Amino acid sequence: MKVTILGCHSASPHENKNPTAQLLDIKAHRFLIDCGEGTQVQLRKAKVSFVHIKHVFISHLHGDHFYGLPGLISSFRLLGREAPLHIYGPKGIKEVITLLLKLAHSWTNFPLHFHELTAQDSEVIFEDEHVSVRTIPLKHRVYTNGFLFSEKLGNRRLNKDALADYAIDKSQFSLLQAGKDVTDETGTIIQNAALTLDPHKPKKYAFCSDTAYDPSIVPLIQGVDLLYHEATFLQQHAHLAAKTGHSTAQEAAAIAKEAAVGKLILGHYSSRYKDLTPFILEAQEIFPQIILAADGAVVS
Amino acid sequence: MKVTILGCHSASPHENKNPTAQLLDIKAHRFLIDCGEGTQVQLRKAKVSFVHIKHVFISHLHGDHFYGLPGLISSFRLLGREAPLHIYGPKGIKEVITLLLKLAHSWTNFPLHFHELTAQDSEVIFEDEHVSVRTIPLKHRVYTNGFLFSEKLGNRRLNKDALADYAIDKSQFSLLQAGKDVTDETGTIIQNAALTLDPHKPKKYAFCSDTAYDPSIVPLIQGVDLLYHEATFLQQHAHLAAKTGHSTAQEAAAIAKEAAVGKLILGHYSSRYKDLTPFILEAQEIFPQIILAADGAVVS
Repeated sequence: MKVTILGCHSASPHENKNPTAQLLDIKAHRFLIDCGEGTQVQLRKAKVSFVHIKHVFISHLHGDHFYGLPGLISSFRLLGREAPLHIYGPKGIKEVITLLLKLAHSWTNFPLHFHELTAQDSEVIFEDEHVSVRTIPLKHRVYTNGFLFSEKLGNRRLNKDALADYAIDKSQFSLLQAGKDVTDETGTIIQNAALTLDPHKPKKYAFCSDTAYDPSIVPLIQGVDLLYHEATFLQQHAHLAAKTGHSTAQEAAAIAKEAAVGKLILGHYSSRYKDLTPFILEAQEIFPQIILAADGAVVS
Repeated sequence: MKVTILGCHSASPHENKNPTAQLLDIKAHRFLIDCGEGTQVQLRKAKVSFVHIKHVFISHLHGDHFYGLPGLISSFRLLGREAPLHIYGPKGIKEVITLLLKLAHSWTNFPLHFHELTAQDSEVIFEDEHVSVRTIPLKHRVYTNGFLFSEKLGNRRLNKDALADYAIDKSQFSLLQAGKDVTDETGTIIQNAALTLDPHKPKKYAFCSDTAYDPSIVPLIQGVDLLYHEATFLQQHAHLAAKTGHSTAQEAAAIAKEAAVGKLILGHYSSRYKDLTPFILEAQEIFPQIILAADGAVVS
């Protein structure tokens, strides 16, 4: 599981300060999370192949979280994309993208599927054999969802050292991975546990931007390996956070602590702060495992 | 008169290859012409104060010419803008900007005036005592206008050398500038021509992007000081130009020659060309005064 920070600044884009966008590599998937203006340039800088992005999750319809999406869709078209694209986001996203395509007298030459979100409670919005994605309802000025990405328990893993001691035909490996016992060349049944290791522990990533401090999300994100939680302000500007529906570094850390997450990534910094060091200091007073998001950074 | 090229590449933005946007300083005005994704970052790089932009002219509703506009409007709002903003562009631009603002639950805290264009013939869309702007109907895949920016004849200029020989009170200078005769301290009438110089010759700038080769625009742009004409392709790809409603460097030069313009700026290069030198060589075979647009370049 790998998170690439494409942009981690709030509001207006500046040179080297991009609005929110992240790329999540999880199992066989490459998910795009939010898509502020300039995201496609950030994807190119990160040398990400556009064609592998099949699912885009948009938290809310403020410009700094989705004004890069129309251009990205245009570029997909120009690049001759044929693979379907799935877009998950608040109701209204279909209307605006459809209107933009209509005004340009163009339609995509690939299937474009909108999954418009309206639920107030957490819901599963994507699921396959590898991964599930559910919404994390957030408290912001407009309808906003964070997203919880959960790996599913994988297959049992072949224990190569143990296998060396038995005469097991390779054709039976898939049975072993599925947890079944197998028979060796002499006809003896070998217990699965003797030949396999437990699957890797499934990983979870929670993306929470934008949101006011809201402890009601804690049960949803309990114990995730990695949490991105916005920290637009420092505590000295807590009144601005409260007024604008954002969080402080201290508040983000408090959520991380209460949810006992593995690590906390901070981001969505207000442009008023030239030096970001105080964010890490403020958060570490509450929760030690802090990562400051930076445009282009990769968190594994 | 000064043109700042904010972006001069076609289609998808790349690092250091921005889609179309230009800033025109003409008399007291600072006009933004087209606004591809990333324009606000380009404006910041060019150290342009956002507040001085009061009029935005959008040629057509393809993404590479206006997907930077919603973000720019958002930034104006965040920066506390109060001055009115006028947006000139094809019908539909009001609907899409209004929808984006509605979805974000925000409205601008400054007056936003839309001037939607539908005319097939050239029309004056802005005029004051200094400047007029009229459309140049272009031939593209969607409804598209270029824009002709014309300075008006200014005041007569005070001839400081001549004034030194007369006893003329400063209170009469505005009469002189308006072309009136004045009276010196002895009561003698002094002819205006003795004290003033002709006004500067008014300048004209024509912006033509995107368009197929279309000689019908020549009468409109006849004799302009500076012409920007798109040159998406080289002549070797004339079939692509014809197919996509674009021009070649040779075609742009032919228009410049026929209209007897002062200088021709080429731009809107297709990303297939790594080296742009052939554009200047191809165009100069037809018309000598060629400038290759480059992001960040200033043409005075």
